[in-house]
Amino acid sequence: MFYILDIIGTIAFSISGVLVALNKRMDPFGIFIIAFVTAVGGGTLRDILLNETPVIWMRDMTFIYVVAITATITILIRNKIDYLRTSLFLFDTIGIGLYTVVGVEKGINAGLHPLICISLGTISACFGGVIRDILCNEIPIIFRKEIYATACILGGIAYFLMSKLPIEEDVVFIVAGCVVISVRLLAVKFKISLPNIYGKA
Amino acid sequence: MFYILDIIGTIAFSISGVLVALNKRMDPFGIFIIAFVTAVGGGTLRDILLNETPVIWMRDMTFIYVVAITATITILIRNKIDYLRTSLFLFDTIGIGLYTVVGVEKGINAGLHPLICISLGTISACFGGVIRDILCNEIPIIFRKEIYATACILGGIAYFLMSKLPIEEDVVFIVAGCVVISVRLLAVKFKISLPNIYGKA
Amino acid sequence: MFYILDIIGTIAFSISGVLVALNKRMDPFGIFIIAFVTAVGGGTLRDILLNETPVIWMRDMTFIYVVAITATITILIRNKIDYLRTSLFLFDTIGIGLYTVVGVEKGINAGLHPLICISLGTISACFGGVIRDILCNEIPIIFRKEIYATACILGGIAYFLMSKLPIEEDVVFIVAGCVVISVRLLAVKFKISLPNIYGKA
Repeated sequence: MFYILDIIGTIAFSISGVLVALNKRMDPFGIFIIAFVTAVGGGTLRDILLNETPVIWMRDMTFIYVVAITATITILIRNKIDYLRTSLFLFDTIGIGLYTVVGVEKGINAGLHPLICISLGTISACFGGVIRDILCNEIPIIFRKEIYATACILGGIAYFLMSKLPIEEDVVFIVAGCVVISVRLLAVKFKISLPNIYGKA
Repeated sequence: MFYILDIIGTIAFSISGVLVALNKRMDPFGIFIIAFVTAVGGGTLRDILLNETPVIWMRDMTFIYVVAITATITILIRNKIDYLRTSLFLFDTIGIGLYTVVGVEKGINAGLHPLICISLGTISACFGGVIRDILCNEIPIIFRKEIYATACILGGIAYFLMSKLPIEEDVVFIVAGCVVISVRLLAVKFKISLPNIYGKA
Repeated sequence: MFYILDIIGTIAFSISGVLVALNKRMDPFGIFIIAFVTAVGGGTLRDILLNETPVIWMRDMTFIYVVAITATITILIRNKIDYLRTSLFLFDTIGIGLYTVVGVEKGINAGLHPLICISLGTISACFGGVIRDILCNEIPIIFRKEIYATACILGGIAYFLMSKLPIEEDVVFIVAGCVVISVRLLAVKFKISLPNIYGKA
């Protein structure tokens, strides 16, 4: 089941990469590359930091196929993609929820401090989008608005709080992922953002 | 012979880095750094992904010397460099041809899937230029125009098709490199580009 | 004592990151991330290149705490930070002095060529600022003005010249760090910069 969610996350991140690249009028090759780095960038940095190389997409071909198929379909139906924005947002949110928990687990398996594990989870979930925005010459969106990384951090904290209790590991995994997803959905629905420290514009 | 081609590639990539940095009016130190990352960036990312560290330019001093000498000469003769544009383009193309094949071979030696090997070859050839453009605050040129990475991918495919046939390894190496070079030369000569998916501007 | 200087360097780099991020009107999370990568970015790249992973801030929690506290305080007192500019510049300079020498030493311990060791030192000292500027969508400042990396390179050379003489290692360490600091302070005080190769603007 996690594997399926992982693929859903990859699809969602690929679509978000394609949309940004189309907006910059890149050629099909550029679009594919942006989709690919958005989908695998976070996991790649995580694995390099943990010295788990060759990184994931070099060992499991599924990722490269999923990105290629997703990017092709997205390019073909790009004129109708506006109807898809809501499901896109949902996919993307499921993606960061899952990537966060996988990152946290990898950190725990490597015997790292809880704070570092949460950082790793957040990096896994967010860094793909950061590279996407750098390659497209924009300030990464997660630095500017929306509860995004904050949701990942809260999910990571939930993971550690629950792991102190007598709860099965699978349940911890799922609930922590749901915390990430819920926080982001609620933040967007109720337009909650981090405190504005600049005063009125 | 491959070593000589490798150095020619390094020279060509260094020159291209210097030209972009001069255009941004960087100081001599900045120019050297841009030349260096353009020349070694692709191989560095490849080796980090393969966990072959310390990376190549830390083990073989030749690269750092070649970049330093090339950058110095290019800065000194920068007013006459326009006469050199054609040979520059040729050097650069030889460079990506060679770097592609070296990357593919490294992937094969690490026992990776053919598609990953081709990706590694393309990364080796193209990533230096990507970092150069990011550091100079531009959208990487390979995402925007010209058959560039596409040539690398076709060369990588040629490599694998030939390796199924009873052809000597050295010949496969040279022919695949020539495929990259020919595709790019022909694409530029006949102004071939990837299909425009945006309609008329 | 080195550990204290190391923390002073981390504080100074964090403050510089916060100031750049405030200037870009990032939210508190973005500010913290920029402060963190500015402080640890150089050491992270150095350790990845040397294959010393998990990298330093994953093994020693001090860095993450220091950045968090520094960023919080800097945000709170940001309206008074102009009074601090001089001490900031001094901290920053102490930081690059120390980071340079630590990088050089790590290279020596890995048995690398002196030129590579000096490069590693310079990378440790400068790369954090480079990532900071890339994430904030600016051409990295060290490529454009000021004797910055040049000071690191001169410090690294001083380190190797002294290590040929019968001088105690600790003294070499301190003097080389002071060379970096002095060169930068003098360059800024007397407005020395690298030769202008572009003629009058």
